[in-house]
Amino acid sequence: MSTAPACLSHSRVTITPALRAAVDRLDHRTRHQAAYHFGWITAGGAPTSADSGKAVRPALALLSAEAAGAPPEVALPGAVAVELVHNFSLLHDDLMDGDEERRHRRTVWKLWGPAGAILTGDALLALAQEVLLDTGLPTAAPAARLLARTTRHLIRGQVQDLAFEQRAHVTVEECIDMAAGKTGSLMSASAAIGAVLAGAPEAVVEALALYGDQVGVAFQLVDDVLGIWGDPAVTGKPVHSDLRSRKKSLPVSHALNRGGPLADELAAWFATRGEPGEEELRRVAGLIERAGGREWALAEAARRMALAEDALRGAELDAGAREELLALGRFVVDREV
Amino acid sequence: MSTAPACLSHSRVTITPALRAAVDRLDHRTRHQAAYHFGWITAGGAPTSADSGKAVRPALALLSAEAAGAPPEVALPGAVAVELVHNFSLLHDDLMDGDEERRHRRTVWKLWGPAGAILTGDALLALAQEVLLDTGLPTAAPAARLLARTTRHLIRGQVQDLAFEQRAHVTVEECIDMAAGKTGSLMSASAAIGAVLAGAPEAVVEALALYGDQVGVAFQLVDDVLGIWGDPAVTGKPVHSDLRSRKKSLPVSHALNRGGPLADELAAWFATRGEPGEEELRRVAGLIERAGGREWALAEAARRMALAEDALRGAELDAGAREELLALGRFVVDREV
Repeated sequence: MSTAPACLSHSRVTITPALRAAVDRLDHRTRHQAAYHFGWITAGGAPTSADSGKAVRPALALLSAEAAGAPPEVALPGAVAVELVHNFSLLHDDLMDGDEERRHRRTVWKLWGPAGAILTGDALLALAQEVLLDTGLPTAAPAARLLARTTRHLIRGQVQDLAFEQRAHVTVEECIDMAAGKTGSLMSASAAIGAVLAGAPEAVVEALALYGDQVGVAFQLVDDVLGIWGDPAVTGKPVHSDLRSRKKSLPVSHALNRGGPLADELAAWFATRGEPGEEELRRVAGLIERAGGREWALAEAARRMALAEDALRGAELDAGAREELLALGRFVVDREV
Repeated sequence: MSTAPACLSHSRVTITPALRAAVDRLDHRTRHQAAYHFGWITAGGAPTSADSGKAVRPALALLSAEAAGAPPEVALPGAVAVELVHNFSLLHDDLMDGDEERRHRRTVWKLWGPAGAILTGDALLALAQEVLLDTGLPTAAPAARLLARTTRHLIRGQVQDLAFEQRAHVTVEECIDMAAGKTGSLMSASAAIGAVLAGAPEAVVEALALYGDQVGVAFQLVDDVLGIWGDPAVTGKPVHSDLRSRKKSLPVSHALNRGGPLADELAAWFATRGEPGEEELRRVAGLIERAGGREWALAEAARRMALAEDALRGAELDAGAREELLALGRFVVDREV
């Protein structure tokens, strides 16, 4: 049994050749932008090995096949496909959110304009389906179907995310639903797709999907905490990035909905417009913390992780893969906070 | 045997309930924007029946099953899927091209901003795969695979289209390749997908795909002629729309590549910047015409149609459906020029 960082690193090494082969099918310009986005080349085209992201989703996909008693290779096209869908969403979200940096580098839209990010994202989404369906496996169709349905939920989550920024009031339930769409859905599909490709029984697929859903929401809770209080050197994003766009992320939503003078003061700030200064952002981050937003988000993440563990413990899974999935989930939630 | 307009109208009526049912799966906001784009509702949400487009691709898909000797119903999910992919590309292309009107109405990005067009387009692309794979048919996987590969070519065509606007020199071959990607690929998939869903022999699928490819390039040649010389009242686009963005469309490419003083004058204009006036656009349209761009494009479209006919005549197809496909192809090419 390997530790979570070793598992992530192994999954990155396992999928990269297949991911590169898939990206190689794209036209010259789209391939260039995708390869830059994945950290394989510089903007000018020189080979490099920049941060490609943690590869949590491919790791879940590979473990998912093992959990169902199949060799991890069965899940390889699924692992590549979920990574492609994840990066499709990053490319489009960075553009829509106006984020100029990701993983300490300029974003694709910032370098090549909106059309570059739109088309490269589109291409990765289509490629994900192609990679799955090219296998010719009889289980490729249900896996591709799962991925298509998941993409719909992913989009719904991003739609809510953008809409909530424009609204004065958003309930905690709405925020959780948004996180379930934006993050839970693809984590869920990742944790299930290997079992689907392995032709596992419905109960096994469902337990893995439920685990992924809960880990996904827990991941988002922690990500939202990092989006407000995270160290830019670690997150690769500007400090207080989520506050700059007045995003009603999960800790904010909790703080706003608990009532009282701190909530009122916060609500008043979220109703203002204009570019906030560093001093102001520090003050607002402090308000959210004093209103319990940070503590609640971390406790809720822990509660979700317990539900995720229950889902796995209740299903007939390979014992080693189950422990690796649990360790990976904990690693995701416990990272740098 | 029905005439082409009747065939298009029949295909629109046949697919609309299934298309609406598919769009109904989307989240509230995305569904609203998609329904507006399809001409079913006004921007405010009131039911209407605005122009939904000609539905050429669904008509090809339905005829494709019949050509392979199957009932057209077999192709219904394919017809819906190609219409969804087509509209995904329209939503994204309108944003990237800065087109403010389509079918005499404001475009989605113009009404709801870039994020609306990006997310609604993404949703339609994912939905296309979902509609196919939800059928559970054993032929759904090859049909979905065809659609995913086609989307890659579609994107390649749009990438070329945007890139060519920035380049001083583009060959006619490059322009044709761009049209084959941007228009030929999805027309080809539309003309083949019904046969794929019907489980037709490879030779039948290939003949239909070749037919669609040629009709697609012919369609694009005519569309480019309309983009320069078309009547705004008929096309629903501003007059000289393709010249405003200095698009190196097919007639332009021919005119630029034939050499001589007219080509030089044109090349000089295409190297200028800034918003051109109406007078200037009329003069440039005249230059392209005198350089033979219009005549060449229409003759090339006719030549492609002859190749399309050859492809169908050489394959074992249902005779009635073959004649309808040929009539539909001619209708597409002969429209309003």
